[in-house]
Amino acid sequence: MTRKIVFNAGPSALPLPVLERAKEELLDFEGTGLSILEHSHRGKAFTRVSEETLALFSELMELPKTHSALFVQGGASLQFAMLAMNFLKPGASADYLVTGHWAKLALQEARRLGTARAAADCAEKGAYVRLPRAGELALDPKAAYVHLTTNNTIFGTQWAEYPDVKGVPLVADMSSDILSRPAQASKFALIYAGAQKNLGPAGLALVAVNRDWLKQARTDVPDILRYQIHLDKQSLYHTPPTFAVYLAGLVLKWIKENGGAVGMAKRNEEKAGLLYGALDRLSGFYRAPVAKEARSRMNVVFRLPSEELDEAFVAEAGKAGMTGLKGHRSTGGVRASLYNAVSRRDVETLVSFMDDFARKRG
Amino acid sequence: MTRKIVFNAGPSALPLPVLERAKEELLDFEGTGLSILEHSHRGKAFTRVSEETLALFSELMELPKTHSALFVQGGASLQFAMLAMNFLKPGASADYLVTGHWAKLALQEARRLGTARAAADCAEKGAYVRLPRAGELALDPKAAYVHLTTNNTIFGTQWAEYPDVKGVPLVADMSSDILSRPAQASKFALIYAGAQKNLGPAGLALVAVNRDWLKQARTDVPDILRYQIHLDKQSLYHTPPTFAVYLAGLVLKWIKENGGAVGMAKRNEEKAGLLYGALDRLSGFYRAPVAKEARSRMNVVFRLPSEELDEAFVAEAGKAGMTGLKGHRSTGGVRASLYNAVSRRDVETLVSFMDDFARKRG
Repeated sequence: MTRKIVFNAGPSALPLPVLERAKEELLDFEGTGLSILEHSHRGKAFTRVSEETLALFSELMELPKTHSALFVQGGASLQFAMLAMNFLKPGASADYLVTGHWAKLALQEARRLGTARAAADCAEKGAYVRLPRAGELALDPKAAYVHLTTNNTIFGTQWAEYPDVKGVPLVADMSSDILSRPAQASKFALIYAGAQKNLGPAGLALVAVNRDWLKQARTDVPDILRYQIHLDKQSLYHTPPTFAVYLAGLVLKWIKENGGAVGMAKRNEEKAGLLYGALDRLSGFYRAPVAKEARSRMNVVFRLPSEELDEAFVAEAGKAGMTGLKGHRSTGGVRASLYNAVSRRDVETLVSFMDDFARKRG
Repeated sequence: MTRKIVFNAGPSALPLPVLERAKEELLDFEGTGLSILEHSHRGKAFTRVSEETLALFSELMELPKTHSALFVQGGASLQFAMLAMNFLKPGASADYLVTGHWAKLALQEARRLGTARAAADCAEKGAYVRLPRAGELALDPKAAYVHLTTNNTIFGTQWAEYPDVKGVPLVADMSSDILSRPAQASKFALIYAGAQKNLGPAGLALVAVNRDWLKQARTDVPDILRYQIHLDKQSLYHTPPTFAVYLAGLVLKWIKENGGAVGMAKRNEEKAGLLYGALDRLSGFYRAPVAKEARSRMNVVFRLPSEELDEAFVAEAGKAGMTGLKGHRSTGGVRASLYNAVSRRDVETLVSFMDDFARKRG
């Protein structure tokens, strides 16, 4: 079998040692005689997996003592609603920094539940190729929270430094760059992320929350949608997605063995540096639309001189063993997602292909 | 490796051929060169899996043309809230048939969102060892819906025939007996079930809904919590739990190959018949507390003459290769869950052990 190089935007590449381990023990988890899929979520084997995974996530996120980690289902999309159900009380208002599609969706879901404002929207002709400047933030000092999306998967932007929100609780959707670099968790009242980009399989969301802030949350919403309940029950309020938790645990161990968040950041900087370097070097052929200071290290977006060439590039890269390079259906073009599990060597293969392709078709 | 016999209440036993197939192709799904875990949910490989799984679920459930199937995350516990958010409008009231812990939780979550009544509650000294009789149902003819739990996992009761609810839309939580027998889907306006008992892994809920009834649902709740949105987007509104969908697909194929819902019902009747037969035959030692007409074919609950013997039974069965027999933490005792993937032979092994144990310790 020849394994493809996976540049998918999510679900995305998983570290090969993680897949190999999961495969090896799929019928017999650690000598227990049954699959991790068959273990009860209340049994010893799984509760240990769950506790270890929560602890390792907290460690790698360098959560301050004020914060706790928890797992929930529903991905980041359920978090859009859950955040507002917990923290957007009647009469209050929340601020959203709109930097792309997912930030907009987060705002839209919040508006179904209460009052929420776009405190910034840096769209230019429908595209989000930069991030808002400090002077463009129209922050409400009384906002219940400010919400931002740390990395924009579709347009390929990423906050390098987080904005100063003047003491208002800051909430981050880190779905597409969590643990790709140090999280700076103490800056945030709440962080959430779908696991399926940097941390594992689809079907699991990881949350880190400041317990003091959590005390202000509403208590009159259904239990299943209350962070406090999931925290009190150590993410076992109801049956968790046990295989996803297990697999995220294996990915987190792999991250730790490879230098933790700092190690990932170094590796991801190098990978992105290689690819943006090639785009700049070959700028007569490839075009990277994102403002340099806003370039994402996770999702590198570019275009060729025509849509036909975009398509030919993706198709030929596919033949050369690289998958997932097609841009998002809303933007077109090419996108290479360089999440943690993508290796430097994978990016070198892509860059070498880009050189060849530019030579042949440029 | 010796595989254990798994009597877990959920997550629970999976068919061995399903686990073997998942293991075999974990690094390379159908020759694509990547794991099903790494495939994009919008790519050809996964969308085919998703469509086939939805179609097969609809087929095995024998859904009438009026109904559609969809997948959501969050398990049955999120369904408790989602049902009420969609169908319990301001000013309306819903009826719940309280036949145990999960039915009670469903009612409790609905009450956080609107008006909901216990239209029956057959607890006797805190235990639910029977189902309500027709005369005990205090149904509201104007109720938005009537909710029931088809099988009670903890106390081990199961509706053999569904009650007549006089034309009010009937909603069922089938989490613990879905596709263990024909679903009679046309009787229900909505059916939901967590997958982790009869259909696959934890982290996926399956829903079947009458599209006409769905037209009456609220549209002012967050999109992620609207059945209509998931239906319109063919369960791809957001990133689905791709591995769980894939695995449920394999389990559904296994169910079809083994006779579908009718085949499962025959098999499950035989298995339950064997075990209840032993309990009745050895009634001087084992005690089955559930009223005969309410006995569950899925979760067979019994007790030994003392708590010490309950514990010894579970421990010795464990040594004999059988796991998951401990009763729910709220009730104690012994519970054998006989979901689809548990074989007749597994139950014969248990019965033989029970005979031995009664002889030795009776």
